[in-house]
Amino acid sequence: MAVYTQVSDEALAAFLAEYDLGVPLSFKGIAEGVENSNYYLETSTGRFILTLFEKRVNAADLPYFIGLKQHLAEKGFPCPEPIHGRDGEALRRLEGRPAVIISFLEGLSPRKPNVTQCRELGAGMARMHAALADFPMRRENDLGPAAWPRLWKGREADAEALQRGLADQISEDLAAIAAVRPDALDLPRGTIHADLFPDNAFFLGDTFSGVIDFYFACTDALAYDLAVCLNAWSFEDGGRDALDFNFSKGAALIAGYESVRPLDPVEREALPILCRGAAVRFFLTRLIDWSSTPEGALVKPKNPLEYANRLAFHRKVATAEGYGA
Amino acid sequence: MAVYTQVSDEALAAFLAEYDLGVPLSFKGIAEGVENSNYYLETSTGRFILTLFEKRVNAADLPYFIGLKQHLAEKGFPCPEPIHGRDGEALRRLEGRPAVIISFLEGLSPRKPNVTQCRELGAGMARMHAALADFPMRRENDLGPAAWPRLWKGREADAEALQRGLADQISEDLAAIAAVRPDALDLPRGTIHADLFPDNAFFLGDTFSGVIDFYFACTDALAYDLAVCLNAWSFEDGGRDALDFNFSKGAALIAGYESVRPLDPVEREALPILCRGAAVRFFLTRLIDWSSTPEGALVKPKNPLEYANRLAFHRKVATAEGYGA
Repeated sequence: MAVYTQVSDEALAAFLAEYDLGVPLSFKGIAEGVENSNYYLETSTGRFILTLFEKRVNAADLPYFIGLKQHLAEKGFPCPEPIHGRDGEALRRLEGRPAVIISFLEGLSPRKPNVTQCRELGAGMARMHAALADFPMRRENDLGPAAWPRLWKGREADAEALQRGLADQISEDLAAIAAVRPDALDLPRGTIHADLFPDNAFFLGDTFSGVIDFYFACTDALAYDLAVCLNAWSFEDGGRDALDFNFSKGAALIAGYESVRPLDPVEREALPILCRGAAVRFFLTRLIDWSSTPEGALVKPKNPLEYANRLAFHRKVATAEGYGA
Repeated sequence: MAVYTQVSDEALAAFLAEYDLGVPLSFKGIAEGVENSNYYLETSTGRFILTLFEKRVNAADLPYFIGLKQHLAEKGFPCPEPIHGRDGEALRRLEGRPAVIISFLEGLSPRKPNVTQCRELGAGMARMHAALADFPMRRENDLGPAAWPRLWKGREADAEALQRGLADQISEDLAAIAAVRPDALDLPRGTIHADLFPDNAFFLGDTFSGVIDFYFACTDALAYDLAVCLNAWSFEDGGRDALDFNFSKGAALIAGYESVRPLDPVEREALPILCRGAAVRFFLTRLIDWSSTPEGALVKPKNPLEYANRLAFHRKVATAEGYGA
């Protein structure tokens, strides 16, 4: 959580002059988002978020992310809507970075989601998948199964340093996933969020109120999005470094999803390997961040072991019923 | 800039239940303030800032800071107003920290204040001093002249490591200040902000709209507040590590102040030594932060040399005219 890029008075004034948003009344850096710089922006016409994209985001992907949010907003799905300037463009540059103004979305991210929120999130995600069914743009999942062996290469010692025996376990996970070849399964595919953690979902009380931060969105198996959420929403701190799968939360998440879009038999069958794969994906990117973040960095990397612990659970689950489906 | 203390869903709900503010609609960490954790809080009745006081703030001082803001707000001076709970209390505890909800103040902090803003700030500060003239509470300036020799003790090598010859210069500054005994001068005294840097002042366009962050406020010479601002508002980057005094900005700041409250002759006479003293104060606290901040810290310490450069200027100024008075 950090603001990486400072915005000068002149640069902000020149940037806002491209829009019909009135005069600025407030401008505060927000301590959210690991990848980009975000500002709360209030003007005489409303409240907005100004995002500056830092170098980890590929600028070539930005029209996809903006088009996706635009599509969802037009469908009435609650998400930040890109604001267009007088020239019709939503994406422009500020302080040498690609930058966009989006609408402000009300809601709070749960620190520790409850069962009701898990059910709501599942249903909300299924509505999001439905709203994106006719979204015409495509983006490959560059953090999908094909990328994992490459991400893993040369990281064995880093994993072993975290926990003895972990390197062999991760290699076995990758071998098990490769044996199934999830990319080749005939799973319903579409546009997925791919990073729908609790801090990217908003609620008013226990009622789902929207989704933010689509910067990992891509074209992939819909059930993989559910697998990411089962990892991110259904595990909880069990004390003493343990992480427990909360069956009620997993079941609620799946039931919520299926209340809008029932899973195909092939998706149910693939759920354990998709959950295991999603845990591998977050383990690997966290491992890379953990090993490569310099000491003085503004952002503290997240502990990869949280996902090693999830993997230990997934290895023992043979069917979707194990997750409450 | 950081959020040090995370607030759980349950703790926030329990905290808000003590107030008549309606239901929460948004809650975002703000990347501002070096000392405390600040959250943007929106409820069905309005927008607020929730502050959790971290350990650098002395809890015994909090009633003073809250009383001060309350007093200013009652006088119509634009500053965040403490919000009282149903029990009449503004100060309570959240996540083990003292915490307060204050009203949201509109305005933007200038990154690089212009001459008009300097004049406005001077006038705004004088109005603040006037509004505080009958504020009954007192707080000693624990970072005033009496504290400087203690802060300096044992730091010579740290200063020398920053710039060769600096240790002797700082010792000379302290000797010169001690010779004048600024605490013994018959300067008009009252309640001052003592940290009114541009990031603690708000403007709408070039119009002053308020002051925030009173957590160094104390009872001291009014002209010392002006001296802090001359240091913080009137110097600008001259390139190649140089820092130039902008005479127009200094003159505008003083003229703005005097448009509301003309300086006494004794204050004009003391202005150079007060400016030098204020620069010593910020040099010393930055030096301590610079030398003692661990590498992995979330907050990057500010460079003390910026104040060593200001001191080089102040040493050559003999009269208030040198600052544009």
